[in-house]
Amino acid sequence: LPGMQSSGSKPCPCPSFKLREVASMYFTMIAVFLVILVVALQGSAPRRSDFPYKVPLDPQGMLELSWNVSYPEQVVHFQLLVRDLRFGLLFGMSDRGEFENADLAVLWSDGHSSYFGDAWSDAQGQLHMDSQQDYQLLGARRAPEGLYLLFRRAFSTCDPKDYLIEDGTVHLIYGILEKPVHSLQAINISALHRGLQRVQLLKPNITVPELPSNMKTMEITAPNVVIPSQETTYWCYMIELPDHFPKHHIIMYEPVITAGNEALVHHMEVFQCAAEFDSFPHYNGPCDSKMKPDRLNYCRHVLAAWAMGAQAFYYPKEAGLAFGGPGSSRYLRLEIHYHNPLVFKGRHDSSGIRLYYTATLRRYDAGIMELGLVYTPVMAIPPGEDAFILTGYCTDKCSRLALPAAGIRIFASQLHTHLAGRKVVTVLSRDGRERQVVNADGHYSPHFQEIRMLKELVAVFPGDELITTCTYNTEDRSRATVGGFGILEEMCVNYVHYYPQTQLELCKSAVDPGYLHRYFNLVNRFNDEEVCTCPQVSVPQQFFSVPWNSFNRDVLKSLYGFAPISMHCNKSSAVRFPGEWEKQPLPTITERLPEPVPRCPPAPGPRPAAPVPLDLGQLRR
Amino acid sequence: LPGMQSSGSKPCPCPSFKLREVASMYFTMIAVFLVILVVALQGSAPRRSDFPYKVPLDPQGMLELSWNVSYPEQVVHFQLLVRDLRFGLLFGMSDRGEFENADLAVLWSDGHSSYFGDAWSDAQGQLHMDSQQDYQLLGARRAPEGLYLLFRRAFSTCDPKDYLIEDGTVHLIYGILEKPVHSLQAINISALHRGLQRVQLLKPNITVPELPSNMKTMEITAPNVVIPSQETTYWCYMIELPDHFPKHHIIMYEPVITAGNEALVHHMEVFQCAAEFDSFPHYNGPCDSKMKPDRLNYCRHVLAAWAMGAQAFYYPKEAGLAFGGPGSSRYLRLEIHYHNPLVFKGRHDSSGIRLYYTATLRRYDAGIMELGLVYTPVMAIPPGEDAFILTGYCTDKCSRLALPAAGIRIFASQLHTHLAGRKVVTVLSRDGRERQVVNADGHYSPHFQEIRMLKELVAVFPGDELITTCTYNTEDRSRATVGGFGILEEMCVNYVHYYPQTQLELCKSAVDPGYLHRYFNLVNRFNDEEVCTCPQVSVPQQFFSVPWNSFNRDVLKSLYGFAPISMHCNKSSAVRFPGEWEKQPLPTITERLPEPVPRCPPAPGPRPAAPVPLDLGQLRR
Repeated sequence: LPGMQSSGSKPCPCPSFKLREVASMYFTMIAVFLVILVVALQGSAPRRSDFPYKVPLDPQGMLELSWNVSYPEQVVHFQLLVRDLRFGLLFGMSDRGEFENADLAVLWSDGHSSYFGDAWSDAQGQLHMDSQQDYQLLGARRAPEGLYLLFRRAFSTCDPKDYLIEDGTVHLIYGILEKPVHSLQAINISALHRGLQRVQLLKPNITVPELPSNMKTMEITAPNVVIPSQETTYWCYMIELPDHFPKHHIIMYEPVITAGNEALVHHMEVFQCAAEFDSFPHYNGPCDSKMKPDRLNYCRHVLAAWAMGAQAFYYPKEAGLAFGGPGSSRYLRLEIHYHNPLVFKGRHDSSGIRLYYTATLRRYDAGIMELGLVYTPVMAIPPGEDAFILTGYCTDKCSRLALPAAGIRIFASQLHTHLAGRKVVTVLSRDGRERQVVNADGHYSPHFQEIRMLKELVAVFPGDELITTCTYNTEDRSRATVGGFGILEEMCVNYVHYYPQTQLELCKSAVDPGYLHRYFNLVNRFNDEEVCTCPQVSVPQQFFSVPWNSFNRDVLKSLYGFAPISMHCNKSSAVRFPGEWEKQPLPTITERLPEPVPRCPPAPGPRPAAPVPLDLGQLRR
Repeated sequence: LPGMQSSGSKPCPCPSFKLREVASMYFTMIAVFLVILVVALQGSAPRRSDFPYKVPLDPQGMLELSWNVSYPEQVVHFQLLVRDLRFGLLFGMSDRGEFENADLAVLWSDGHSSYFGDAWSDAQGQLHMDSQQDYQLLGARRAPEGLYLLFRRAFSTCDPKDYLIEDGTVHLIYGILEKPVHSLQAINISALHRGLQRVQLLKPNITVPELPSNMKTMEITAPNVVIPSQETTYWCYMIELPDHFPKHHIIMYEPVITAGNEALVHHMEVFQCAAEFDSFPHYNGPCDSKMKPDRLNYCRHVLAAWAMGAQAFYYPKEAGLAFGGPGSSRYLRLEIHYHNPLVFKGRHDSSGIRLYYTATLRRYDAGIMELGLVYTPVMAIPPGEDAFILTGYCTDKCSRLALPAAGIRIFASQLHTHLAGRKVVTVLSRDGRERQVVNADGHYSPHFQEIRMLKELVAVFPGDELITTCTYNTEDRSRATVGGFGILEEMCVNYVHYYPQTQLELCKSAVDPGYLHRYFNLVNRFNDEEVCTCPQVSVPQQFFSVPWNSFNRDVLKSLYGFAPISMHCNKSSAVRFPGEWEKQPLPTITERLPEPVPRCPPAPGPRPAAPVPLDLGQLRR
């Protein structure tokens, strides 16, 4: 990866650290197991290609995680670099990055001896040794840059205390032990220096397409920006393509990260501006500044997107993203999200994205289509809900009209909600039967919106339905959350990347507004309350005045599951395909996809429920 | 068991049938397993006490099932007597007695050799060999009365094709092969002579209390009735206790079945009449006859109940059911359900129930309390539903008022619904947390309403809540099913038998009628339909005029889950305890009972996926 800090990834011929191979027995409250031997790493350092994915865990980059994925074995191999080991560390996974109900690998030292074990934390954050040891230590090695720990973990262990590694976002957590501890149980999680990092662990296993010899590159990078000393900054920078820049195909792009800023650059996107405007003002500053020209809001067409932990993005060999030429704007907007929780001052940054493009156009232009819900307040989430579901439809009627007979192939997907989003999934349905998951993230975070390559192309034909379902959490809100563009409003969108490009840009839905009006009338009459349902009051105002209780909540759910929809089957955000799109029937599903049955590790061998002792020498006090 | 046909149960010293012990290998589409050896029964016939439970499977009694239950092993041992073996038989279990998606043990013959195997039927009724053989054949033996097959089956096998044996009703199915078949797959299920029988397989393991020496018996039996030659008859017969019959305790009762009628007598109940009336007319005839005096409808207090497959019913040693004495009616009604699907003519019957009672009163009078829903049309089920749920509450307020500080002990339970009932469960909740299942039947059938002893006493204290949930299927109905006494109306009741007796006879609920009225208004306005919600139209009429769709259905569900309730906290069906019982809040549940995790058989040994050959000699063509 270009621009990555080199100290962690360069192989260096340092003396390997020996592990004492000890077998002993321990008693736990759960069971007694035999301790098996630790397999020591051989003297050679692991090759960089062994661990193609890398991410810093903490904002200072003290912990650096590399990993690889074996789909045949259904196993992830982790290599954790600890730059400055004190008295141990915790590494693990949990539903949304919390330290309660987490699944953890723990390395701890009592000042003399060090141990490694698979543990879990209960709802109070108390650590327990796991009865089944599924983080399997493969080795440990000292190097000048720090200690390397190597371990593996099956996707699914069938141990109810363990995290199930699935497609989509995984919330990794870490904690650093700064004092010796006498036992695992003695670790006080709340007193640790700790944090979380989101990654897509199960990267798709995609072969890199051959790249043409006439490929050119263009770096869209920030002009030596001083990163503001605040936790969150969205930086905006306008770039202009040369005059008469002809049509090219972007066939690949990759991040360019200023050395030392790997832990600060959270994600970056390059947008193309709207072709309607002849020119856009130059700008270089925070995206939320009052000084930012309003016209920059018309630069929303995604050309490239990168997020921490992501690698280079390759288009499939048949397709490229059109870029330049008549009918497209010469103006691009680079947006960088700096995440600076330790409030470093005076850090300079010139990160960005390097586009690889070619004038030798590929067979197909790639396109991007929006699936999900229309940005409208008629789709709303009551307050105080832990998992409220909204669904947006791309109907058979729209796909029949807009897709070519040979269909389209979806190869990548970017899921999008605002702050209340917790899960997003799009399912393909044909003849009323669910056929295939297009993309799913059961641990979705609005703070981690990557463009993700799909594991396999999804073919969509005329008459197919694409159903996008978002799950929201509004437990911390006291009034309804309506759909819309605002950060406290919500969206439910899947931007699917596909080829060949069609005219269909939007295939989204929302509940019929007339039926929603009946809902407000109903709530008003049922609850004997003064809910103003007069037409001059806005839909958000009406939602805000609903007296929320389980009945009004359940009836809203029933309405969304029953009322006809208004379809946006659009060529561009303002131009609909011809046809009747109001009061359309909801798609009916007669057959659901079966729940996936987790594959358990074959023939569970002896996995000790006891810590594995490690000889790491005397640790720093 | 008194009155049971003797041929099947008498041990007889007949020559035991030898099994050829053969090990061979078979290939199936699923897997290859080693065939293990069949364990031959030793020469001695099994003792009757080995299989304490017995039931005929078919109306002619050709197949007779005996079984026992081992709770430590979590296994049921079956002994199946086949009186006239042709070319094999099917025996198995399915959700509600259907032959599709069933779990089957199959004995079949090609005319020369015979085989036994564990099979399953798919949704089309096609048979397949099971990849895991969980019906384990233990032996086969010929006797003058027929062939005995002995096999065992774990409650839970963790094979997704297998039926999970749970508490409550199990629908057993059987089929008789009248022609040789070349393979399991060649069996055409729809062409078989076949049927179903309902039993409680998992009988509670209760030690019989010691019985007093001064115990007397009284037989309440039909007076040599000619069983009508029609499939279903409910026969009513009035009996009178002697004048001045003093108070006794019934401490046990058992069925008395006329020999030969074991397969025809489906269930029997003895009811005591209401004490308000000095006399009741004599009657001996069908319960639905126009000649039956109306006053017999006041004989509804259950004294004893028996259903096919049930044994003697013993009261706990501390308690007995009060019977006789001042304040109780001298009149009893015996009701016998004859099930005569083969329309036998001229069969005479004098079956009934033998009561065992004593004048030496036990410490506590036993009582019966009704839990669940009030018999009122406000609780209704929309048409076309496969699993609609209604819930009745016995609230903390009522139990606090009516129960003694030391609480009561529930020892038995009889679940009751009309024809649409599919599941019934009562859960005890304390301080908003579900604590214990009182009684549950996930395969409930309205045609099999036994009084069931609980596996353990359930202690209920003042302030506890008892929540009874019924699941209904109305897929075959075109209009709403309302609550009420009619056979096409519904009930949701758990008659719990407990001690010490209290004044509380009814602890049931129904939705507040005012809220239901709002529902009808809401449906009317939302659907733009003419639903007459005028007060002069009855609640059933209003339900019948609802235009049913998923919205109106879901809103009714939401209403039942939200609206306050009207409580019937009654001393007798007409007399409420003092207090405010209208518009009571619904009990809230903050913690549910966890779903039980089925225990899989320990260390699955080699179980062949291939039929076990049996040498049964030449079978009759």
